[in-house]
Amino acid sequence: MPSLETPFFDRLAAAILAKRSPLMVGLDPRWQQLPEGLRPADGASLTEVAEAFRAHSCGVIDAVADLTPIIKPQAAFFEQLGPAGMTALAAVIDHAHAAGLLVCIDGKRNDIGSTAEAYADGWLGATSPWKGDALTVSPYLGDDSLEPFTNIAAERGCGVFILVKTSNPGGGLFQDQQSGGQPLYRQVGNYVDSIAKATVGECGYGVAGAVVGATYPEQLAKLRAAMPHTWFLVPGFGAQGGAATDVAGGFDAKGLGAVVNSSRGVIFAYEKRPHADGWQAAVRVAAEEAVQQLREVMPG
Amino acid sequence: MPSLETPFFDRLAAAILAKRSPLMVGLDPRWQQLPEGLRPADGASLTEVAEAFRAHSCGVIDAVADLTPIIKPQAAFFEQLGPAGMTALAAVIDHAHAAGLLVCIDGKRNDIGSTAEAYADGWLGATSPWKGDALTVSPYLGDDSLEPFTNIAAERGCGVFILVKTSNPGGGLFQDQQSGGQPLYRQVGNYVDSIAKATVGECGYGVAGAVVGATYPEQLAKLRAAMPHTWFLVPGFGAQGGAATDVAGGFDAKGLGAVVNSSRGVIFAYEKRPHADGWQAAVRVAAEEAVQQLREVMPG
Repeated sequence: MPSLETPFFDRLAAAILAKRSPLMVGLDPRWQQLPEGLRPADGASLTEVAEAFRAHSCGVIDAVADLTPIIKPQAAFFEQLGPAGMTALAAVIDHAHAAGLLVCIDGKRNDIGSTAEAYADGWLGATSPWKGDALTVSPYLGDDSLEPFTNIAAERGCGVFILVKTSNPGGGLFQDQQSGGQPLYRQVGNYVDSIAKATVGECGYGVAGAVVGATYPEQLAKLRAAMPHTWFLVPGFGAQGGAATDVAGGFDAKGLGAVVNSSRGVIFAYEKRPHADGWQAAVRVAAEEAVQQLREVMPG
Repeated sequence: MPSLETPFFDRLAAAILAKRSPLMVGLDPRWQQLPEGLRPADGASLTEVAEAFRAHSCGVIDAVADLTPIIKPQAAFFEQLGPAGMTALAAVIDHAHAAGLLVCIDGKRNDIGSTAEAYADGWLGATSPWKGDALTVSPYLGDDSLEPFTNIAAERGCGVFILVKTSNPGGGLFQDQQSGGQPLYRQVGNYVDSIAKATVGECGYGVAGAVVGATYPEQLAKLRAAMPHTWFLVPGFGAQGGAATDVAGGFDAKGLGAVVNSSRGVIFAYEKRPHADGWQAAVRVAAEEAVQQLREVMPG
Protein backbone atom coordinates (compact mmCIF):
# COMPACT_ATOMS: atom_id res chain seq x y z
CA MET A 1 0.00 0.00 0.00
CA PRO A 2 1.43 3.43 -0.94
CA SER A 3 2.44 5.68 1.92
CA LEU A 4 0.37 8.77 2.71
CA GLU A 5 3.04 10.96 1.13
CA THR A 6 2.16 9.40 -2.23
CA PRO A 7 0.11 12.00 -4.12
CA PHE A 8 -3.64 11.50 -3.77
CA PHE A 9 -4.31 10.97 -7.45
CA ASP A 10 -1.57 8.34 -7.67
CA ARG A 11 -3.19 6.53 -4.75
CA LEU A 12 -6.59 6.91 -6.41
CA ALA A 13 -5.29 5.61 -9.76
CA ALA A 14 -3.73 2.56 -8.07
CA ALA A 15 -6.96 1.78 -6.23
CA ILE A 16 -9.05 2.16 -9.41
CA LEU A 17 -6.77 -0.23 -11.30
CA ALA A 18 -6.71 -2.73 -8.41
CA LYS A 19 -10.51 -2.78 -8.09
CA ARG A 20 -11.25 -2.16 -11.77
CA SER A 21 -13.72 0.46 -10.60
CA PRO A 22 -13.97 4.23 -11.08
CA LEU A 23 -17.12 4.36 -8.91
CA MET A 24 -17.25 6.87 -6.07
CA VAL A 25 -20.05 6.22 -3.61
CA GLY A 26 -21.58 9.40 -2.18
CA LEU A 27 -22.76 9.20 1.41
CA ASP A 28 -25.81 11.50 1.63
CA PRO A 29 -27.80 10.12 4.56
CA ARG A 30 -31.38 11.32 5.00
CA TRP A 31 -33.56 10.50 7.95
CA GLN A 32 -36.68 9.39 6.05
CA GLN A 33 -34.72 7.20 3.65
CA LEU A 34 -32.85 5.11 6.19
CA PRO A 35 -33.80 1.42 6.16
CA GLU A 36 -36.26 0.00 8.66
CA GLY A 37 -34.48 -0.93 11.82
CA LEU A 38 -32.08 2.00 11.42
CA ARG A 39 -34.65 4.75 10.78
CA PRO A 40 -35.21 6.80 13.96
CA ALA A 41 -38.78 7.27 15.15
CA ASP A 42 -40.50 10.66 14.93
CA GLY A 43 -39.29 12.83 17.77
CA ALA A 44 -35.87 11.18 17.95
CA SER A 45 -33.08 13.40 19.24
CA LEU A 46 -30.39 14.74 16.92
CA THR A 47 -27.93 12.45 18.69
CA GLU A 48 -30.10 9.44 17.86
CA VAL A 49 -30.43 10.52 14.23
CA ALA A 50 -26.67 11.11 14.03
CA GLU A 51 -26.04 7.60 15.35
CA ALA A 52 -28.41 6.24 12.68
CA PHE A 53 -26.54 8.23 9.97
CA ARG A 54 -23.27 6.78 11.24
CA ALA A 55 -24.64 3.24 11.25
CA HIS A 56 -26.11 3.62 7.75
CA SER A 57 -22.97 5.15 6.22
CA CYS A 58 -20.70 2.58 7.88
CA GLY A 59 -23.06 -0.17 6.68
CA VAL A 60 -22.84 1.17 3.13
CA ILE A 61 -19.03 1.23 3.39
CA ASP A 62 -18.97 -2.41 4.55
CA ALA A 63 -21.25 -3.39 1.65
CA VAL A 64 -19.25 -1.66 -1.10
CA ALA A 65 -15.64 -1.56 0.15
CA ASP A 66 -14.30 -3.98 -2.46
CA LEU A 67 -16.30 -2.33 -5.28
CA THR A 68 -15.18 1.28 -4.93
CA PRO A 69 -11.84 3.01 -4.36
CA ILE A 70 -13.32 6.10 -2.70
CA ILE A 71 -16.34 7.36 -0.81
CA LYS A 72 -17.64 10.92 -0.65
CA PRO A 73 -19.49 11.93 2.52
CA GLN A 74 -21.64 15.01 1.94
CA ALA A 75 -20.88 17.41 4.80
CA ALA A 76 -24.29 19.12 4.53
CA PHE A 77 -26.28 16.13 5.77
CA PHE A 78 -24.05 15.66 8.79
CA GLU A 79 -23.95 19.40 9.55
CA GLN A 80 -27.75 19.42 9.40
CA LEU A 81 -27.70 17.51 12.72
CA GLY A 82 -25.49 20.00 14.56
CA PRO A 83 -22.40 18.94 16.55
CA ALA A 84 -23.71 15.37 16.93
CA GLY A 85 -23.72 15.03 13.16
CA MET A 86 -20.13 16.22 12.93
CA THR A 87 -19.05 13.58 15.44
CA ALA A 88 -20.82 10.99 13.28
CA LEU A 89 -19.03 12.30 10.18
CA ALA A 90 -15.64 11.84 11.85
CA ALA A 91 -16.57 8.27 12.77
CA VAL A 92 -17.67 7.52 9.18
CA ILE A 93 -14.35 8.82 7.82
CA ASP A 94 -12.41 6.64 10.27
CA HIS A 95 -14.50 3.62 9.29
CA ALA A 96 -13.85 4.20 5.59
CA HIS A 97 -10.10 4.41 6.15
CA ALA A 98 -10.18 1.23 8.22
CA ALA A 99 -11.94 -0.42 5.26
CA GLY A 100 -9.06 0.67 2.99
CA LEU A 101 -11.03 3.38 1.18
CA LEU A 102 -10.01 6.88 0.22
CA VAL A 103 -12.29 9.67 1.46
CA CYS A 104 -13.29 12.82 -0.41
CA ILE A 105 -15.15 15.26 1.83
CA ASP A 106 -17.86 17.02 -0.16
CA GLY A 107 -17.89 20.39 1.59
CA LYS A 108 -17.56 22.84 -1.31
CA ARG A 109 -15.61 25.07 1.06
CA ASN A 110 -13.79 28.29 0.42
CA ASP A 111 -12.97 31.71 1.84
CA ILE A 112 -10.27 34.38 1.52
CA GLY A 113 -6.68 33.19 1.82
CA SER A 114 -5.93 32.90 5.53
CA THR A 115 -9.35 31.40 6.22
CA ALA A 116 -9.09 29.03 3.25
CA GLU A 117 -5.87 27.82 4.86
CA ALA A 118 -7.79 26.97 8.03
CA TYR A 119 -10.30 24.92 6.02
CA ALA A 120 -7.53 23.10 4.15
CA ASP A 121 -5.55 22.49 7.33
CA GLY A 122 -8.63 21.17 9.12
CA TRP A 123 -9.97 18.87 6.44
CA LEU A 124 -6.95 17.48 4.57
CA GLY A 125 -4.45 14.84 5.52
CA ALA A 126 -3.91 12.01 7.96
CA THR A 127 -2.73 14.39 10.71
CA SER A 128 -5.74 16.72 10.40
CA PRO A 129 -8.76 16.29 12.68
CA TRP A 130 -11.07 15.23 9.82
CA LYS A 131 -8.43 13.22 7.93
CA GLY A 132 -9.88 13.77 4.45
CA ASP A 133 -7.85 12.55 1.47
CA ALA A 134 -9.58 15.09 -0.75
CA LEU A 135 -12.03 17.99 -0.45
CA THR A 136 -14.38 19.74 -2.86
CA VAL A 137 -13.78 23.49 -3.13
CA SER A 138 -15.70 26.41 -4.70
CA PRO A 139 -13.81 28.83 -7.01
CA TYR A 140 -15.79 32.11 -6.83
CA LEU A 141 -13.25 33.81 -4.52
CA GLY A 142 -10.42 33.44 -7.05
CA ASP A 143 -6.88 32.12 -7.23
CA ASP A 144 -5.60 33.33 -3.85
CA SER A 145 -8.47 31.46 -2.20
CA LEU A 146 -7.66 28.23 -4.07
CA GLU A 147 -3.88 28.20 -3.59
CA PRO A 148 -4.03 27.45 0.16
CA PHE A 149 -6.02 24.30 -0.65
CA THR A 150 -3.76 23.11 -3.47
CA ASN A 151 -0.59 23.97 -1.50
CA ILE A 152 -1.66 22.04 1.58
CA ALA A 153 -2.97 19.20 -0.60
CA ALA A 154 0.42 18.97 -2.33
CA GLU A 155 2.28 18.94 1.00
CA ARG A 156 0.10 16.23 2.51
CA GLY A 157 -0.47 13.90 -0.43
CA CYS A 158 -4.08 15.02 -0.75
CA GLY A 159 -6.33 16.26 -3.54
CA VAL A 160 -8.76 19.09 -4.18
CA PHE A 161 -11.74 18.98 -6.55
CA ILE A 162 -12.64 22.52 -7.65
CA LEU A 163 -16.14 23.19 -8.99
CA VAL A 164 -15.91 23.83 -12.73
CA LYS A 165 -19.21 22.76 -14.31
CA THR A 166 -21.86 21.53 -11.91
CA SER A 167 -24.64 19.05 -12.65
CA ASN A 168 -27.66 21.09 -11.51
CA PRO A 169 -30.04 22.73 -14.02
CA GLY A 170 -29.22 26.23 -12.75
CA GLY A 171 -25.47 25.68 -12.88
CA GLY A 172 -25.24 27.59 -16.15
CA LEU A 173 -26.56 30.90 -14.84
CA PHE A 174 -23.10 32.12 -13.93
CA GLN A 175 -20.86 29.24 -15.13
CA ASP A 176 -21.95 29.63 -18.76
CA GLN A 177 -21.50 33.41 -18.92
CA GLN A 178 -19.41 34.17 -21.98
CA SER A 179 -16.29 36.21 -21.38
CA GLY A 180 -13.40 36.67 -23.80
CA GLY A 181 -14.90 34.09 -26.15
CA GLN A 182 -15.20 31.38 -23.50
CA PRO A 183 -17.76 30.49 -20.85
CA LEU A 184 -16.69 31.20 -17.27
CA TYR A 185 -16.40 27.49 -16.46
CA ARG A 186 -13.73 27.13 -19.15
CA GLN A 187 -11.76 29.95 -17.55
CA VAL A 188 -12.05 28.28 -14.16
CA GLY A 189 -11.00 25.03 -15.86
CA ASN A 190 -7.94 26.69 -17.41
CA TYR A 191 -6.84 27.91 -14.00
CA VAL A 192 -7.40 24.49 -12.42
CA ASP A 193 -5.43 22.73 -15.14
CA SER A 194 -2.53 25.16 -14.75
CA ILE A 195 -2.24 24.15 -11.10
CA ALA A 196 -2.67 20.48 -11.97
CA LYS A 197 0.04 20.73 -14.63
CA ALA A 198 2.50 22.24 -12.15
CA THR A 199 1.94 19.42 -9.64
CA VAL A 200 1.63 16.37 -11.87
CA GLY A 201 2.31 13.00 -10.24
CA GLU A 202 3.20 9.58 -11.63
CA CYS A 203 -0.34 8.95 -12.88
CA GLY A 204 -0.21 12.12 -14.99
CA TYR A 205 -2.57 14.21 -12.87
CA GLY A 206 -1.84 17.03 -10.40
CA VAL A 207 -3.29 17.97 -6.99
CA ALA A 208 -6.07 20.13 -8.46
CA GLY A 209 -9.03 18.12 -9.73
CA ALA A 210 -12.34 19.40 -11.09
CA VAL A 211 -16.02 18.73 -10.52
CA VAL A 212 -17.63 18.31 -13.95
CA GLY A 213 -21.25 17.13 -14.12
CA ALA A 214 -22.32 14.07 -16.08
CA THR A 215 -25.49 15.88 -17.13
CA TYR A 216 -23.43 17.68 -19.79
CA PRO A 217 -21.69 14.81 -21.67
CA GLU A 218 -20.51 16.89 -24.61
CA GLN A 219 -18.89 19.48 -22.34
CA LEU A 220 -17.34 16.67 -20.32
CA ALA A 221 -15.49 15.31 -23.37
CA LYS A 222 -14.37 18.79 -24.42
CA LEU A 223 -13.11 19.54 -20.93
CA ARG A 224 -11.25 16.21 -20.82
CA ALA A 225 -9.32 17.37 -23.89
CA ALA A 226 -8.83 20.92 -22.60
CA MET A 227 -7.73 19.88 -19.09
CA PRO A 228 -5.31 17.00 -19.63
CA HIS A 229 -3.67 17.23 -16.17
CA THR A 230 -6.89 17.49 -14.16
CA TRP A 231 -8.69 14.55 -12.61
CA PHE A 232 -12.49 14.83 -12.83
CA LEU A 233 -15.06 14.11 -10.17
CA VAL A 234 -18.22 13.44 -12.20
CA PRO A 235 -21.48 13.76 -10.26
CA GLY A 236 -24.93 13.24 -11.75
CA PHE A 237 -24.60 9.54 -12.60
CA GLY A 238 -27.64 7.46 -11.64
CA ALA A 239 -30.33 9.28 -9.66
CA GLN A 240 -29.48 12.68 -11.19
CA GLY A 241 -30.10 11.31 -14.70
CA GLY A 242 -26.65 10.69 -16.18
CA ALA A 243 -26.06 7.31 -17.88
CA ALA A 244 -22.74 5.45 -18.14
CA THR A 245 -22.42 6.51 -21.78
CA ASP A 246 -22.74 10.14 -20.62
CA VAL A 247 -19.65 9.85 -18.42
CA ALA A 248 -17.51 7.97 -20.96
CA GLY A 249 -15.94 11.20 -22.19
CA GLY A 250 -14.46 11.86 -18.75
CA PHE A 251 -11.90 9.05 -18.95
CA ASP A 252 -8.49 9.16 -20.57
CA ALA A 253 -7.24 6.42 -22.91
CA LYS A 254 -6.06 4.31 -19.95
CA GLY A 255 -9.43 4.49 -18.21
CA LEU A 256 -8.09 6.91 -15.62
CA GLY A 257 -8.76 10.63 -15.08
CA ALA A 258 -12.29 10.36 -13.70
CA VAL A 259 -14.22 9.06 -10.71
CA VAL A 260 -17.96 8.82 -11.21
CA ASN A 261 -20.15 9.49 -8.22
CA SER A 262 -23.40 7.81 -7.41
CA SER A 263 -25.13 8.63 -4.13
CA ARG A 264 -28.86 7.98 -3.83
CA GLY A 265 -28.89 5.28 -6.54
CA VAL A 266 -26.58 3.15 -4.39
CA ILE A 267 -27.08 4.06 -0.74
CA PHE A 268 -30.91 3.96 -0.83
CA ALA A 269 -31.15 1.12 -3.43
CA TYR A 270 -33.32 -0.92 -1.04
CA GLU A 271 -36.21 1.53 -1.48
CA LYS A 272 -36.87 0.54 -5.07
CA ARG A 273 -35.35 -2.93 -5.06
CA PRO A 274 -35.36 -4.57 -1.64
CA HIS A 275 -33.21 -7.68 -1.23
CA ALA A 276 -34.07 -10.84 0.68
CA ASP A 277 -30.73 -10.67 2.49
CA GLY A 278 -31.36 -7.16 3.82
CA TRP A 279 -30.66 -3.55 2.94
CA GLN A 280 -26.89 -3.90 2.65
CA ALA A 281 -27.32 -6.65 0.03
CA ALA A 282 -29.55 -4.30 -1.99
CA VAL A 283 -26.88 -1.56 -1.73
CA ARG A 284 -24.22 -4.03 -2.89
CA VAL A 285 -26.25 -5.15 -5.91
CA ALA A 286 -26.74 -1.52 -6.98
CA ALA A 287 -23.02 -0.80 -6.58
CA GLU A 288 -22.11 -3.93 -8.55
CA GLU A 289 -24.40 -2.86 -11.37
CA ALA A 290 -22.98 0.66 -11.40
CA VAL A 291 -19.43 -0.69 -11.57
CA GLN A 292 -20.42 -3.05 -14.38
CA GLN A 293 -21.98 -0.20 -16.38
CA LEU A 294 -18.90 1.95 -15.87
CA ARG A 295 -16.50 -0.86 -16.86
CA GLU A 296 -18.31 -1.13 -20.18
CA VAL A 297 -17.55 2.49 -21.10
CA MET A 298 -14.14 2.77 -19.42
CA PRO A 299 -11.19 2.40 -21.81
CA GLY A 300 -8.26 0.10 -21.02
CA MET B 1 -37.92 42.77 21.27
CA PRO B 2 -39.23 41.59 17.88
CA SER B 3 -40.28 37.95 17.61
CA LEU B 4 -38.21 35.51 15.61
CA GLU B 5 -40.77 35.61 12.80
CA THR B 6 -39.79 39.22 12.23
CA PRO B 7 -37.59 39.26 9.12
CA PHE B 8 -33.88 39.16 9.89
CA PHE B 9 -33.05 42.48 8.27
CA ASP B 10 -35.85 44.22 10.19
CA ARG B 11 -34.39 42.80 13.40
CA LEU B 12 -30.92 43.88 12.32
CA ALA B 13 -32.10 47.40 11.42
CA ALA B 14 -33.82 47.77 14.81
CA ALA B 15 -30.69 46.62 16.65
CA ILE B 16 -28.46 48.97 14.63
CA LEU B 17 -30.69 51.94 15.42
CA ALA B 18 -30.95 50.99 19.11
CA LYS B 19 -27.17 50.67 19.50
CA ARG B 20 -26.26 53.33 16.94
CA SER B 21 -23.77 50.82 15.58
CA PRO B 22 -23.40 49.05 12.21
CA LEU B 23 -20.36 47.14 13.48
CA MET B 24 -20.29 43.37 13.02
CA VAL B 25 -17.63 41.66 15.09
CA GLY B 26 -16.09 38.64 13.36
CA LEU B 27 -15.06 35.77 15.60
CA ASP B 28 -11.98 34.21 13.97
CA PRO B 29 -10.17 32.52 16.86
CA ARG B 30 -6.58 31.38 16.28
CA TRP B 31 -4.55 29.38 18.74
CA GLN B 32 -1.38 31.50 18.70
CA GLN B 33 -3.28 34.76 19.06
CA LEU B 34 -5.32 33.91 22.13
CA PRO B 35 -4.47 36.00 25.18
CA GLU B 36 -2.16 34.70 27.87
CA GLY B 37 -4.08 32.66 30.34
CA LEU B 38 -6.39 31.37 27.61
CA ARG B 39 -3.75 30.28 25.11
CA PRO B 40 -3.27 26.50 25.26
CA ALA B 41 0.26 25.17 25.69
CA ASP B 42 2.07 23.38 22.86
CA GLY B 43 0.77 19.85 22.62
CA ALA B 44 -2.69 20.71 23.94
CA SER B 45 -5.48 18.45 22.71
CA LEU B 46 -8.03 19.68 20.18
CA THR B 47 -10.62 19.57 22.95
CA GLU B 48 -8.48 21.91 25.05
CA VAL B 49 -7.96 24.27 22.12
CA ALA B 50 -11.70 24.19 21.35
CA GLU B 51 -12.46 25.13 24.96
CA ALA B 52 -10.02 28.04 24.67
CA PHE B 53 -11.70 29.17 21.43
CA ARG B 54 -15.07 29.02 23.18
CA ALA B 55 -13.78 31.00 26.16
CA HIS B 56 -12.16 33.63 23.94
CA SER B 57 -15.18 34.09 21.66
CA CYS B 58 -17.58 34.24 24.63
CA GLY B 59 -15.26 36.73 26.31
CA VAL B 60 -15.27 38.90 23.20
CA ILE B 61 -19.08 38.74 23.11
CA ASP B 62 -19.27 39.85 26.75
CA ALA B 63 -16.90 42.73 26.04
CA VAL B 64 -18.73 44.08 22.97
CA ALA B 65 -22.39 43.07 23.41
CA ASP B 66 -23.67 46.63 23.86
CA LEU B 67 -21.50 47.96 21.01
CA THR B 68 -22.56 45.66 18.19
CA PRO B 69 -25.86 44.27 16.91
CA ILE B 70 -24.39 41.13 15.39
CA ILE B 71 -21.43 38.78 15.57
CA LYS B 72 -20.05 36.60 12.79
CA PRO B 73 -18.32 33.39 13.83
CA GLN B 74 -16.07 32.05 11.07
CA ALA B 75 -16.90 28.35 10.66
CA ALA B 76 -13.45 27.52 9.27
CA PHE B 77 -11.59 28.15 12.51
CA PHE B 78 -13.97 25.98 14.52
CA GLU B 79 -14.01 23.24 11.85
CA GLN B 80 -10.22 23.27 11.94
CA LEU B 81 -10.46 21.62 15.38
CA GLY B 82 -12.69 18.76 14.27
CA PRO B 83 -15.88 17.78 16.12
CA ALA B 84 -14.69 19.46 19.34
CA GLY B 85 -14.51 22.76 17.48
CA MET B 86 -18.06 22.36 16.21
CA THR B 87 -19.30 21.81 19.76
CA ALA B 88 -17.51 25.03 20.76
CA LEU B 89 -19.12 26.88 17.83
CA ALA B 90 -22.59 25.84 19.00
CA ALA B 91 -21.78 27.10 22.51
CA VAL B 92 -20.56 30.44 21.14
CA ILE B 93 -23.77 30.91 19.15
CA ASP B 94 -25.87 30.19 22.24
CA HIS B 95 -23.81 32.64 24.28
CA ALA B 96 -24.29 35.38 21.68
CA HIS B 97 -28.04 34.87 21.63
CA ALA B 98 -28.14 34.97 25.44
CA ALA B 99 -26.30 38.32 25.21
CA GLY B 100 -29.04 39.62 22.88
CA LEU B 101 -26.93 39.53 19.72
CA LEU B 102 -27.80 38.35 16.25
CA VAL B 103 -25.52 35.70 14.77
CA CYS B 104 -24.35 35.43 11.16
CA ILE B 105 -22.53 32.15 10.50
CA ASP B 106 -19.70 32.72 8.05
CA GLY B 107 -19.67 29.37 6.26
CA LYS B 108 -19.81 30.37 2.58
CA ARG B 109 -21.81 27.21 2.02
CA ASN B 110 -23.51 25.96 -1.09
CA ASP B 111 -24.32 22.88 -3.15
CA ILE B 112 -26.94 21.68 -5.65
CA GLY B 113 -30.59 22.21 -4.66
CA SER B 114 -31.49 19.32 -2.35
CA THR B 115 -28.14 19.53 -0.59
CA ALA B 116 -28.33 23.31 -0.32
CA GLU B 117 -31.65 22.76 1.44
CA ALA B 118 -29.90 20.59 4.02
CA TYR B 119 -27.34 23.35 4.69
CA ALA B 120 -30.07 25.97 5.00
CA ASP B 121 -32.21 23.77 7.22
CA GLY B 122 -29.26 22.97 9.46
CA TRP B 123 -27.83 26.45 9.89
CA LEU B 124 -30.78 28.84 9.84
CA GLY B 125 -33.40 29.61 12.44
CA ALA B 126 -34.11 29.22 16.13
CA THR B 127 -35.38 25.64 15.67
CA SER B 128 -32.29 24.50 13.72
CA PRO B 129 -29.37 22.80 15.49
CA TRP B 130 -26.98 25.69 14.85
CA LYS B 131 -29.57 28.46 15.32
CA GLY B 132 -27.95 30.97 12.95
CA ASP B 133 -29.87 34.17 12.20
CA ALA B 134 -27.99 34.50 8.92
CA LEU B 135 -25.48 32.55 6.83
CA THR B 136 -22.98 33.49 4.13
CA VAL B 137 -23.47 31.60 0.85
CA SER B 138 -21.43 31.19 -2.36
CA PRO B 139 -23.14 31.76 -5.75
CA TYR B 140 -21.09 29.72 -8.25
CA LEU B 141 -23.70 26.92 -8.47
CA GLY B 142 -26.42 29.28 -9.72
CA ASP B 143 -29.99 30.24 -8.90
CA ASP B 144 -31.39 26.81 -8.05
CA SER B 145 -28.63 26.45 -5.45
CA LEU B 146 -29.44 29.83 -3.89
CA GLU B 147 -33.24 29.55 -3.74
CA PRO B 148 -33.26 26.88 -1.00
CA PHE B 149 -31.33 29.29 1.21
CA THR B 150 -33.48 32.33 0.51
CA ASN B 151 -36.71 30.30 0.77
CA ILE B 152 -35.83 28.83 4.15
CA ALA B 153 -34.50 32.21 5.32
CA ALA B 154 -37.81 33.84 4.38
CA GLU B 155 -39.83 31.17 6.21
CA ARG B 156 -37.78 31.41 9.38
CA GLY B 157 -37.14 35.14 9.65
CA CYS B 158 -33.49 34.68 8.72
CA GLY B 159 -31.09 36.22 6.23
CA VAL B 160 -28.56 35.08 3.66
CA PHE B 161 -25.48 37.01 2.54
CA ILE B 162 -24.43 35.89 -0.95
CA LEU B 163 -20.86 36.53 -2.11
CA VAL B 164 -20.92 39.26 -4.76
CA LYS B 165 -17.57 41.10 -4.62
CA THR B 166 -15.06 39.75 -2.14
CA SER B 167 -12.32 41.68 -0.38
CA ASN B 168 -9.30 39.53 -1.28
CA PRO B 169 -6.76 40.61 -3.94
CA GLY B 170 -7.54 37.59 -6.15
CA GLY B 171 -11.31 38.11 -5.94
CA GLY B 172 -11.35 39.72 -9.36
CA LEU B 173 -9.98 36.71 -11.28
CA PHE B 174 -13.48 35.38 -11.93
CA GLN B 175 -15.71 38.06 -10.34
CA ASP B 176 -14.45 40.80 -12.67
CA GLN B 177 -14.80 38.78 -15.89
CA GLN B 178 -16.73 40.92 -18.35
CA SER B 179 -19.81 39.35 -19.85
CA GLY B 180 -22.58 41.15 -21.72
CA GLY B 181 -21.03 44.52 -20.85
CA GLN B 182 -20.92 43.85 -17.10
CA PRO B 183 -18.51 42.12 -14.76
CA LEU B 184 -19.74 38.80 -13.37
CA TYR B 185 -20.15 40.23 -9.87
CA ARG B 186 -22.71 42.71 -11.22
CA GLN B 187 -24.69 39.85 -12.72
CA VAL B 188 -24.59 38.00 -9.41
CA GLY B 189 -25.64 41.27 -7.76
CA ASN B 190 -28.57 41.67 -10.13
CA TYR B 191 -29.81 38.19 -9.26
CA VAL B 192 -29.40 38.82 -5.53
CA ASP B 193 -31.28 42.12 -5.71
CA SER B 194 -34.15 40.48 -7.62
CA ILE B 195 -34.63 38.04 -4.74
CA ALA B 196 -34.25 40.83 -2.19
CA LYS B 197 -36.82 42.96 -4.03
CA ALA B 198 -39.35 40.11 -3.98
CA THR B 199 -38.99 39.64 -0.21
CA VAL B 200 -38.65 43.19 1.05
CA GLY B 201 -39.48 43.78 4.72
CA GLU B 202 -40.39 46.90 6.71
CA CYS B 203 -36.82 48.18 6.68
CA GLY B 204 -36.79 48.13 2.87
CA TYR B 205 -34.46 45.14 2.46
CA GLY B 206 -35.24 41.54 1.50
CA VAL B 207 -33.92 38.16 2.72
CA ALA B 208 -31.03 38.08 0.24
CA GLY B 209 -28.06 40.18 1.33
CA ALA B 210 -24.66 40.50 -0.35
CA VAL B 211 -21.02 40.34 0.69
CA VAL B 212 -19.27 43.37 -0.83
CA GLY B 213 -15.68 44.08 0.21
CA ALA B 214 -14.58 47.41 1.68
CA THR B 215 -11.34 47.15 -0.26
CA TYR B 216 -13.23 48.36 -3.35
CA PRO B 217 -14.94 51.58 -2.11
CA GLU B 218 -15.94 52.84 -5.55
CA GLN B 219 -17.60 49.56 -6.48
CA LEU B 220 -19.31 49.52 -3.09
CA ALA B 221 -21.05 52.84 -3.79
CA LYS B 222 -22.04 51.78 -7.30
CA LEU B 223 -23.43 48.50 -6.01
CA ARG B 224 -25.36 50.34 -3.28
CA ALA B 225 -27.14 52.27 -6.05
CA ALA B 226 -27.60 49.20 -8.28
CA MET B 227 -28.89 46.92 -5.50
CA PRO B 228 -31.35 49.07 -3.53
CA HIS B 229 -33.14 46.12 -1.83
CA THR B 230 -30.00 44.25 -0.78
CA TRP B 231 -28.35 44.59 2.61
CA PHE B 232 -24.55 44.53 2.44
CA LEU B 233 -22.10 42.69 4.65
CA VAL B 234 -18.90 44.66 4.19
CA PRO B 235 -15.71 42.82 5.17
CA GLY B 236 -12.22 44.23 4.92
CA PHE B 237 -12.59 47.06 7.47
CA GLY B 238 -9.66 47.35 9.86
CA ALA B 239 -7.02 44.63 9.60
CA GLN B 240 -7.69 43.99 5.89
CA GLY B 241 -6.95 47.63 5.06
CA GLY B 242 -10.35 49.29 4.59
CA ALA B 243 -10.95 52.63 6.37
CA ALA B 244 -14.29 53.96 7.61
CA THR B 245 -14.43 56.36 4.67
CA ASP B 246 -14.09 53.36 2.35
CA VAL B 247 -17.27 51.78 3.70
CA ALA B 248 -19.34 54.97 3.71
CA GLY B 249 -20.77 54.18 0.28
CA GLY B 250 -22.38 51.02 1.61
CA PHE B 251 -24.99 52.85 3.71
CA ASP B 252 -28.32 54.20 2.53
CA ALA B 253 -29.52 57.72 3.39
CA LYS B 254 -30.89 56.50 6.75
CA GLY B 255 -27.60 54.89 7.76
CA LEU B 256 -29.00 51.42 7.16
CA GLY B 257 -28.27 48.83 4.44
CA ALA B 258 -24.81 47.79 5.62
CA VAL B 259 -23.06 46.02 8.45
CA VAL B 260 -19.32 46.48 8.55
CA ASN B 261 -17.25 43.57 9.78
CA SER B 262 -14.07 43.79 11.80
CA SER B 263 -12.48 40.59 13.03
CA ARG B 264 -8.78 40.61 13.92
CA GLY B 265 -8.69 44.36 14.61
CA VAL B 266 -11.15 43.86 17.47
CA ILE B 267 -10.78 40.34 18.81
CA PHE B 268 -6.97 40.39 19.02
CA ALA B 269 -6.68 44.11 19.88
CA TYR B 270 -4.68 43.26 23.04
CA GLU B 271 -1.71 42.17 20.89
CA LYS B 272 -0.90 45.69 19.72
CA ARG B 273 -2.53 47.66 22.51
CA PRO B 274 -2.69 45.80 25.78
CA HIS B 275 -4.94 47.26 28.48
CA ALA B 276 -4.24 47.46 32.20
CA ASP B 277 -7.65 45.95 32.91
CA GLY B 278 -6.99 42.85 30.83
CA TRP B 279 -7.56 41.53 27.33
CA GLN B 280 -11.31 42.09 27.29
CA ALA B 281 -10.84 45.76 28.08
CA ALA B 282 -8.47 46.05 25.09
CA VAL B 283 -11.08 44.36 22.87
CA ARG B 284 -13.73 46.77 24.13
CA VAL B 285 -11.61 49.85 23.41
CA ALA B 286 -10.99 48.64 19.86
CA ALA B 287 -14.71 48.00 19.31
CA GLU B 288 -15.60 51.44 20.73
CA GLU B 289 -13.15 53.09 18.36
CA ALA B 290 -14.48 51.14 15.38
CA VAL B 291 -18.06 52.14 16.23
CA GLN B 292 -16.98 55.77 16.63
CA GLN B 293 -15.28 55.74 13.22
CA LEU B 294 -18.33 54.17 11.60
CA ARG B 295 -20.75 56.65 13.23
CA GLU B 296 -18.79 59.49 11.66
CA VAL B 297 -19.41 58.20 8.13
CA MET B 298 -22.89 56.74 8.69
CA PRO B 299 -25.74 58.98 7.50
CA GLY B 300 -28.77 59.68 9.70
